[in-house]
Order: sequence, then structure tokens, then C-alpha cells
Amino acid sequence: MVIYMGNLRTCHFCFKELVVVIFRVLRDGDVTIKVLFCGICHTDLHVIKNEWGNAMYPVVPGHEVVGVVTDVGPGVTKFEAGDTVGVGYFVDSCRSCESCSTGHENYCPDVVLASNGVDGDGATTQGGFSDVVVVDQDYVVRVPRSLPPDGAAPLLCAGVTVYSPMVQYGLNAPGKRLGVVGLGGLGHMAVKFGKAFGMTVTVISSSPGKREEAIERLGADEFLISSDPEQMKAEAGTMDGIIDTVSAWHPLAALLELLKPMGQMVLVGVPSKPLELPAFAVCPSGKRVAGNGVGSVGDCQAMLDFAGEHGITADVEVVGMDYVNKAIERLERNDVRYRFVVDVAGSLGADA
Amino acid sequence: MVIYMGNLRTCHFCFKELVVVIFRVLRDGDVTIKVLFCGICHTDLHVIKNEWGNAMYPVVPGHEVVGVVTDVGPGVTKFEAGDTVGVGYFVDSCRSCESCSTGHENYCPDVVLASNGVDGDGATTQGGFSDVVVVDQDYVVRVPRSLPPDGAAPLLCAGVTVYSPMVQYGLNAPGKRLGVVGLGGLGHMAVKFGKAFGMTVTVISSSPGKREEAIERLGADEFLISSDPEQMKAEAGTMDGIIDTVSAWHPLAALLELLKPMGQMVLVGVPSKPLELPAFAVCPSGKRVAGNGVGSVGDCQAMLDFAGEHGITADVEVVGMDYVNKAIERLERNDVRYRFVVDVAGSLGADA
Repeated sequence: MVIYMGNLRTCHFCFKELVVVIFRVLRDGDVTIKVLFCGICHTDLHVIKNEWGNAMYPVVPGHEVVGVVTDVGPGVTKFEAGDTVGVGYFVDSCRSCESCSTGHENYCPDVVLASNGVDGDGATTQGGFSDVVVVDQDYVVRVPRSLPPDGAAPLLCAGVTVYSPMVQYGLNAPGKRLGVVGLGGLGHMAVKFGKAFGMTVTVISSSPGKREEAIERLGADEFLISSDPEQMKAEAGTMDGIIDTVSAWHPLAALLELLKPMGQMVLVGVPSKPLELPAFAVCPSGKRVAGNGVGSVGDCQAMLDFAGEHGITADVEVVGMDYVNKAIERLERNDVRYRFVVDVAGSLGADA
Repeated sequence: MVIYMGNLRTCHFCFKELVVVIFRVLRDGDVTIKVLFCGICHTDLHVIKNEWGNAMYPVVPGHEVVGVVTDVGPGVTKFEAGDTVGVGYFVDSCRSCESCSTGHENYCPDVVLASNGVDGDGATTQGGFSDVVVVDQDYVVRVPRSLPPDGAAPLLCAGVTVYSPMVQYGLNAPGKRLGVVGLGGLGHMAVKFGKAFGMTVTVISSSPGKREEAIERLGADEFLISSDPEQMKAEAGTMDGIIDTVSAWHPLAALLELLKPMGQMVLVGVPSKPLELPAFAVCPSGKRVAGNGVGSVGDCQAMLDFAGEHGITADVEVVGMDYVNKAIERLERNDVRYRFVVDVAGSLGADA
């Protein structure tokens, strides 16, 4: 019986002086993972600041983990010490509901979030900004050797959040036309996956300054300024699907105009104010709007395998743990291209 | 060469004294149909009153036609004189666009509406409130002999408008749970199809007085009052899909709560004011909202065949042409259970 204990140090998120994270005894199927890198997601920011009113301090954020297996509990068959693995937005689910039974455990009503969640034993879950995490093998994925672990970390949430609905709604076929609204952590991943699927990708943004970035750096085919009615009108009815990553309120009608009849919009950003959905923008043309929340464990593994084959990683700025507060500030004003990743193991140095 | 000419009489919709409707010369593939019955749809009301600003007077409304073939043009292979047939919301399309090529001609950008549309030759189309209509055979459907022609007429628009998305989104499987919002011309058809598919059907309405009607007369399994938060909460997360037929503005969030994760809402009513779509109501649960506009010709034939097998018709109030203005007034205040159908041939009597 081994108890894993985090080191005593200042928590950069809850600002408590000392946080002792005691990991659970290894249960059947548990895998112990030494965290190498962990991405910083907007959701971490919401939770840290208790913007959703559900923070259970002290919070240890982080759900874009890449690490190395250091130990396995009884019954573990999928992983062994030394494996490079990932942990994403959730670490358990009920395993019996309709969502779990059909391979969509990300939509289980009792899903256990990787951070600030409540585990089956009542414990508050602690995320990846920690030297070690312990996770059931069924919620751990394998990270291809070909991917650098820092660039791979954001795939565990940002990557699967756009990849999963692209596959689910058939927006992964060569020749199809994809619109990507917003060019941030999620948006830049959607552009990369879209191009790897062989699609024609148009970035739609309110920031004209992102044109060069979108086309030259990320390989998008076209760039539209969402506030320019002429540009938007010229592309009306041309897109098979749109991945809308914007988390601030924005009008949907002009974006829906871009879709072909029966086209699919997917919302992956979550503005707090309700969006406007004009029925006339969807009924006469049979258009659709779906929400999406991350993806299943199976989706996540498929996404990583695909990313490994195509050399897809997030564009990241790797920072030490001592830069985290500054990174959070910069993330709040979207001053990052495109994802901060904390070098957790590197920051801990000899302590780890 | 035969020119079909409507009789001279007062138009009950545009209020012009005399309307002469000259039907086109029978072209290749054309079918001449003597109109027996024609339903009155809310869309007719919008057009008659020019509420959408696109009325081309004199308007002859009507797109829920059941009639008998009296003549066929060159090259007609699908129908012959004496056949009982139907004509729905549209009578032609481009036949080459992506929608037409994939069997979704109802979403063709150049679809030709049955009434108040513009035909390929530039003529304004005239609807089913007329003794005769001439329509290309590819846009005519066969009405099963087992169905009474008056009760079948509303199937051509109201019926296919709910049947088509139910099939498209898999809301046609025994054991699944369907919500139907609003109990009018569209809603009562959705209840009937839902029950015939073997589903558990819940009617959701703001009118408590419709409970008995929904359950006793139409065979719904449950009835929810949409304004009662307790009732709504008790059914949260239980429905596979919802057909929302309400054409007045109404909040979607409480309805979306009723859906299971990944559940499908379909909008078939078209409120003029944009609906509110909270992203948090769809993203964490992967829920979806789709618009739907009628259905393809193939959908319409499949719906009629299914209706014939299961004895499904609309509940109608059959009226003479001289009652049409009164019927329109009553339709405006939803005073009909559930569809007015004009006995066109019967009203014309010896003139026809």
C-alpha cells in the first residue's frame, strides 16, 4: 500500500500557502502518473476564479496532462511503468448510463472531472498541476511517441473538443469546406485537424490582424472578417460545417448564413449570455446547431493516434510553475499563441 | 395542346373580384390534377397577409393538395388518369445542386413553391385553391387508397414537416421517448406518427386544457405544462428528441433540459423573433437543435405510405370555399382542431 503525497508548496491558483495533496491508495485498475506537462485551459481560469460558483478550494487545476506511468495497481492491463500517457477533462464516470453504455462517457451525468470534481469515494479531485496523478486505466490514453509531450498536452482537452465533433458530424472528409470561428486554443487546433482531414478551411474572426497568422502559419485556405457583411455575403451557402470556438457573446445568424443547406454548426465555446438563434436561419434550410463538450476516452485516443500520424500538436508557450499567475493574466486577455503549457516536472526539479 | 383555365370568381384571399388562372400548356412530364381537397396552412395565412413581404398578388394559396389525375403530358410514366395523388409545398427545383443531388430538394436554393413561387419560365405559381393544378410528375406523390382524401390533404405539408425530421434524426424507433411542443396542426401529427413508430410520446403545452385532448383523443402517453417548473424538472433528461412546433417566441432552455445527453430538438415552427439558445444548455451535454423545412418528395411519399399502413390522417374540419375567410380568422386564433381543409371540388359543384 502506497500513499502518494504532493510536495508542500504555495498553490499558485488558490493562493493558499501550503497545499498537501494526498493521492488515493492505488485501487484496482489505477495508474500512477508522473506529470510532465499540463496545459492551461480557459476552464481552469473559470474555476480558479469561481466564475461558475462551484469551486471547491483548495483547487488544483489542470486537465491537459501528459506524463509517464510510474506504477500500476492490481488488474491494470493497458499500461505499464514507462508508458507516456495522457489524462484529459474527466477521470471517471458511472459506466452504466446510456451515455457510458454507448461510448459517450463525456456526457455521463455523473462524470468525474479531473479537477474540482467529486470522485466516487467523495474526494475532491485534484488536477494536473501536481507532481503525480492517480487515474483509473480506463480514463487514461496513450500518447504516441512521435509527439513532443509539451505540444501534445493541450490535445487532451482543446484537441479532442474540436476533433470529436468534426468526426461525429462528418466534418472530416477531404473536399468538404470547414469554417472555424475564433483563432485561439480551440480554433487553431480545428484549423490543423481540418487541414489534416483534407478539407478547405476558412478562419472567421473579428480580428483582421489574424489573417496572416491563420493562412501563413496555420495553413488555413481563407480568412473572413466576421464584421464585414460584404465578405460574409460572398461566402454564403458555401460551408459544410462550422466549429464555433468563441466564448464571448456573438451573433449566430451571419455565421449560419455561411452554411450550405443542412450544414452543421458546432458550438464549443460557452458564452454566459444566451446566443440568439433565429428560426428562419435554420428551418427553411434544414441547418443544425449542436453543442459539444470535449469527447469520449475513445475519441481522445483516436484523436491522439491521428495527431501522431499527422504530426499535429498545439502551438504552445511552455512556462515554469513560477510563471503561472502571469500566464493566467495573459490568458485572460488572450495574449498567447495559442496555449500555455506548464513544465510541471521541470519546475519541480530536484524536489520531484 | 390544352390550356386549362380556372373559373372566374372572387378570390377569397387577395380579395380581388375576378381571378383568371391560366395553367400552362402540358409540358413533358406534366400531370394535370383535379383538386379534391386542399388544407389551410399557417404559411398560407402569412402569404395572404404579406407578413413576409413577398406576396405576389393575386395569390392563389394552397399547398396541401389531394386530387385526381385527369390528364398527363408527354413522357409521364409515373401516373395515369384516375390516380389519387398529392402535391405539397413545392412543385419543382433545380435538380442539379447538392441538395437536389442528394435527395433533399426541399432545401434547393431554387426550389419552386407550389403557391406564390416563381416557376422556371418566370410564371408565378398558383396553389391548390383552384379547380386544377398542373405539376411535373417528379413533384407529385401517390396517395394510398386507404386514406380518405380530406384527412390526407394536411399530410402533404404538416405531415411531412414532422415525419421527415423524425426519420432523419432517428426519432422513429420503438421505445424511444419523444416530446412534442405545441398541439396544433403540426403537433397533433407528430403525436400520431410518434405513437405509430412505437415511441413514448409526451405533449408539452402551455395550455393545461389540452391534457385530455392530448391523452384521450390523440393517444399521447404524458402531458407536461411547460410553465410548471416542477413538472418540467421531474422529466429532465428523459427524452431522446423533441419536435417543437410552436411558431410564437418561447424559451428553449427549459425544453432542452428535457432532453437526454446528445438529444435532438427539431424546430418546425418559425417565430419571427430570434429564440434564445444558451450554450450551457447544449455544450456540456452534446445536445442539438436543428431547423426543418417540410421534407423531400421521397420523404413525402414514404410518409404517405407509412400513413396508409397505419391509418394516419390529420384531424380536420372540412369547409366549403365560401367559409374560407371565416376559417382564416379562426386559424389566426388557433380555433381549429387541427386543420381546416377546403372541399374544393365540392364547393365548385356543377361549375367544375
